Amino acid sequence: MPNSRVPRVREPDVEPCCPPLTERPFTAEEAERSARMFKALGDPVRLRLFTAVASHEGGEACVCDISDVGVSQPTVSHHLKKLREAGLLTSERRGTWVFYRVEPSVLAAMGRLLRADATA
Amino acid sequence: MPNSRVPRVREPDVEPCCPPLTERPFTAEEAERSARMFKALGDPVRLRLFTAVASHEGGEACVCDISDVGVSQPTVSHHLKKLREAGLLTSERRGTWVFYRVEPSVLAAMGRLLRADATA
Repeated sequence: MPNSRVPRVREPDVEPCCPPLTERPFTAEEAERSARMFKALGDPVRLRLFTAVASHEGGEACVCDISDVGVSQPTVSHHLKKLREAGLLTSERRGTWVFYRVEPSVLAAMGRLLRADATA
Repeated sequence: MPNSRVPRVREPDVEPCCPPLTERPFTAEEAERSARMFKALGDPVRLRLFTAVASHEGGEACVCDISDVGVSQPTVSHHLKKLREAGLLTSERRGTWVFYRVEPSVLAAMGRLLRADATA
């Protein structure tokens, strides 16, 4: 159970942004922000970890729940941290473990970027 | 105008795949295929070029149409080639220039990956 005294490890410092990719050329700043989200999912191991967390019971998982992607636990932790920094996961420490959860608003923002029907 | 004798430079060798990211853990093969698409958009310059092509008049553009992203023409060509290899753009040579066009099916497949409402 979450404990109200347990601090969040860190909130993601990413704000979803930007119109659909097909609408108009992105500015440099928009491209920087959006590319960061895409890059986070642009690694096969990271993508497997993301799907493992996203589909885990209760919508969250800790390193202790993930063991079958063929990489070491420190590597799992490293990738989960990258996903958090990109705003795709949030995290919360409970005792020994950090639990990760998908941030639906960022996923939805990425989905909006890819909406082709928004073109004129 | 397209000329029917002009060959396509190359068809993308990428097939969109895989269920939404939140549905179940991806296999290694699914992760490889999907990560490739995300990685292609995970670079700010590449993302700017993609949006420039996608929003260009007629839905296509050549290197000659793109000049305002602050990189050299060979760099533009390099990134457009990467986007083509990832299946996000198709290309067609017409005379001196290669024209690039967004591949809507691949964009739609990426959008489906990000559908959060497909979770159980």
